[in-house]
Amino acid sequence: MTITGKLLINGEWIDGQAGSYRAVDPATGQELSPALGKASTEQVKQAVAAAEAASSTFRRMSVQKRAGFLRACAEEIMALGEPLVERAMAETGLPRARIEGERGRTCGQLNLFADTILKGDFLDVRIDTALPDRQPLPRPDLRYMNQAIGPVVVFGASNFPLAFSVAGGDTASALAAGCPVLVKGHSSHPGTSELVAQAIAKAARVTGMPAGAFSLLMGSGREVGTALVSAPEVKAVGFTGSFAGGMTLVRLAAERPEPIPVFTEMGSLNPVVLLPEALDRDAEKLAEGFIGSLNMGVGQFCTNPGLVLGIGSPALDRFVASAARHLAQQPAGVMLNEGIRQAYSQGVASISSQPGVNKTAVGEEPEGKSGFCGQPTLLTVSATDFIANHALAEEMFGPASLLVSCRNSGELLAALKSLGGQLTGTIHAAAGEMAGYDELIDVLSQRVGRLLVNGFPTGVEVCHAMNHGGPFPATSDVRFTSVGTAAIQRFLRPICLQNYPGDLFPEPLQDSNPLNIWRLVNGELSKAAL
Amino acid sequence: MTITGKLLINGEWIDGQAGSYRAVDPATGQELSPALGKASTEQVKQAVAAAEAASSTFRRMSVQKRAGFLRACAEEIMALGEPLVERAMAETGLPRARIEGERGRTCGQLNLFADTILKGDFLDVRIDTALPDRQPLPRPDLRYMNQAIGPVVVFGASNFPLAFSVAGGDTASALAAGCPVLVKGHSSHPGTSELVAQAIAKAARVTGMPAGAFSLLMGSGREVGTALVSAPEVKAVGFTGSFAGGMTLVRLAAERPEPIPVFTEMGSLNPVVLLPEALDRDAEKLAEGFIGSLNMGVGQFCTNPGLVLGIGSPALDRFVASAARHLAQQPAGVMLNEGIRQAYSQGVASISSQPGVNKTAVGEEPEGKSGFCGQPTLLTVSATDFIANHALAEEMFGPASLLVSCRNSGELLAALKSLGGQLTGTIHAAAGEMAGYDELIDVLSQRVGRLLVNGFPTGVEVCHAMNHGGPFPATSDVRFTSVGTAAIQRFLRPICLQNYPGDLFPEPLQDSNPLNIWRLVNGELSKAAL
Repeated sequence: MTITGKLLINGEWIDGQAGSYRAVDPATGQELSPALGKASTEQVKQAVAAAEAASSTFRRMSVQKRAGFLRACAEEIMALGEPLVERAMAETGLPRARIEGERGRTCGQLNLFADTILKGDFLDVRIDTALPDRQPLPRPDLRYMNQAIGPVVVFGASNFPLAFSVAGGDTASALAAGCPVLVKGHSSHPGTSELVAQAIAKAARVTGMPAGAFSLLMGSGREVGTALVSAPEVKAVGFTGSFAGGMTLVRLAAERPEPIPVFTEMGSLNPVVLLPEALDRDAEKLAEGFIGSLNMGVGQFCTNPGLVLGIGSPALDRFVASAARHLAQQPAGVMLNEGIRQAYSQGVASISSQPGVNKTAVGEEPEGKSGFCGQPTLLTVSATDFIANHALAEEMFGPASLLVSCRNSGELLAALKSLGGQLTGTIHAAAGEMAGYDELIDVLSQRVGRLLVNGFPTGVEVCHAMNHGGPFPATSDVRFTSVGTAAIQRFLRPICLQNYPGDLFPEPLQDSNPLNIWRLVNGELSKAAL
Repeated sequence: MTITGKLLINGEWIDGQAGSYRAVDPATGQELSPALGKASTEQVKQAVAAAEAASSTFRRMSVQKRAGFLRACAEEIMALGEPLVERAMAETGLPRARIEGERGRTCGQLNLFADTILKGDFLDVRIDTALPDRQPLPRPDLRYMNQAIGPVVVFGASNFPLAFSVAGGDTASALAAGCPVLVKGHSSHPGTSELVAQAIAKAARVTGMPAGAFSLLMGSGREVGTALVSAPEVKAVGFTGSFAGGMTLVRLAAERPEPIPVFTEMGSLNPVVLLPEALDRDAEKLAEGFIGSLNMGVGQFCTNPGLVLGIGSPALDRFVASAARHLAQQPAGVMLNEGIRQAYSQGVASISSQPGVNKTAVGEEPEGKSGFCGQPTLLTVSATDFIANHALAEEMFGPASLLVSCRNSGELLAALKSLGGQLTGTIHAAAGEMAGYDELIDVLSQRVGRLLVNGFPTGVEVCHAMNHGGPFPATSDVRFTSVGTAAIQRFLRPICLQNYPGDLFPEPLQDSNPLNIWRLVNGELSKAAL
């Protein structure tokens, strides 16, 4: 398939009516062909109307059929072959292995959601059978199940052109739930976005989905994004990106006549705590692992370890020296786009200029390299200065981290208490060492969505038990993950049928349990027929 | 126990610092003794700080211990005995049978949540075991569970002085989840509120709960309510009441630096659709049932049938005539307070004055009766006029209903499509009749949280399969119920532990599954040990 620069609206590829632009190769700064169209507000309305028109059919479709669509999406994405990989590399500066791995993750994610909806747990079926003879009043038959909330808007993220973009976790979980999806593609990888949308459109056609089940709209966040989030038919929003961008959507959705839920994943410092025994035993090994995690993907992960905390000691000095040595050998990598590179440089400069902050090590200079390169950087500061200065808790999105040196465990605790919500928190501890840090663990766990021990936070497993979320400001809603099968819960709402005719129940609620799913029957989980 | 007029803050009974007021008996309009204190903003801060201080202990407490607290609350409420019933009757004008029934419902609800947390399903435990040999990368051990979101503010509702108030469904579900609760008691039944809070305080003391686990604050919604919802430590809000009051809280919470979820249940028209065959067969019986449901509790239910829709026919005429006859025999009942009585009279007058609306029947005149009485009223209008005039979709909170006469099934469908979100929708149908109304059922089900067949919407069962919620503007969040065991989901958030030391897992995540709860292990529900 070739890139046409068109938008996908109501199952058709249409020229954008609001001007055109070109993608940029961040490794060269050069524009890529062809010219790409932007959606007008009128086109957004058409796409939203198509999504609304598809809503009832898509919601009531059997899980088997919807699972077939998700699997077909994965197949068609793989069938895009080399052109997808090459375009994604050209638009993001990410290497082949990363793009191919991310493609596998994206397709695995689609297939996992297909498996998940066939299992039926997501329906949370609850049946309380009638008690006609109960005193003082009989109980009617009551049956409860989840169903799709309605059309969902998904904003593609810049840093995962496949796994958090057009066919990423937000889209997969919303489609799995039965919600039509309107993707606002990220302008940092528009050709990649179109190719993936072509795959979805083909899958939708082959598996007989309604035309409005999936749309791709490109254009400015301010215009296209605002029009999408403001549309009355839209019932939820998924977003991964910056705090400023995410909060704009949160506020916009809250000001609608009908407020709607917005799930924004807005990044994080991902504090890594080095406990003394672990540090004493493994300072050099920890330093090597830390720098590897920090520089993975040129540091452009929401779970990048941007903050390291330890208690001052010869071991911590060894850790810093070793980390500095490793960091100095890191090349300046190509970042995703010019805006991210600029924000990174400015962020590092801003944090570096704060009182008490030392630039302990830097990687290779970006000067002289073509493209938008970011220089790996390790900064250090005392806990006293860190706690006193909120500016130091700003995320530097890229390969930079701030090491906070604490005088004692009390100061370490105080530094953790000063933190806002985070996607992850990590503790490095020797065997048995954590037992002495009950309060520290509790304080950290209250500030994170995922707590890791003796690992690094980059690498977010797509599985049932993942929580990629966390307290504000890491996300706008601590109650939901955007990665893993629980992500589907964001796009569901229950309905209860009372005294309903047996022959009209949807399959999940039928007496015979034809889907063979787990159901809470009179308070007990069961797969049995009634 | 006697009513002191004090507030419960940090486990102690304290005089309010922002003036005093008295409760009013709506049956006489007379003030009741004693004088009652209002909380100052400073006292709100103290209570919030106490809740935050209790948060960690309360969240990490065993489910057995928290279940014991909930059961003790139920026991202590029953132990309040006759003084509670008498005070609630005096403050609300509701009859003894209703108050005693509601007390039973309230205690049953507390015990049901105790049972629910012992079962452990609410924890949604998910375990994906380590795959150390997986290629290209190993999978770490990942364990996921729900935990309390943090301090919750509950606004007591006026119309259920027990079941939706101090120890009502919001409080029970939040405490069950492990969230400290700060109740803003309703000034329509403040003495009842204090007595119930005394019972909870005693239960908390006896079962060893932290002092800040439960607080009662009385005072104005504008001052005390705003201070509570604005407090940074507060993580969620539950509310049942008017649209205006609910939306004030929704907007306030959305404007906080850290937005928090607000669950408002804001009332509903609860459309009742009379299909032709059912009407033809049972017009008189349906009319009798309808008027009984309409007048129950002087119509002061969120699920009151405020809208009836049918297709014009001799049978519909019989229904209207019969309903009018029954209604004319209904007394003007004492409403909960003067504000509600006034709003009811104004609402009925406003709807009655709209083009095409006829006042078809009224009950007994309130004139000459002491107290705040509301006159039962049945209005009728054509579907054409109804669809054209949004003012007719305003709720009249009280014993009034609007009957919409449609020319045909197409107009009936159009009238349903014109409706906003509702808590409930009801269809009366003869056997097999619904099969011909697929689109009507779909349209109605998309606008409701609960769809009933051949019943009336008043009477909300407290069970697992209940959904007392619905699309906006019935509630602010269609994804959650405020009645039934699923209500606990509002106050939970997940956390994921990755590669965590086995000896430090909380009980729900331990290999041996000591709580014997259902867990999703590698994607399959199981109670087995690992």
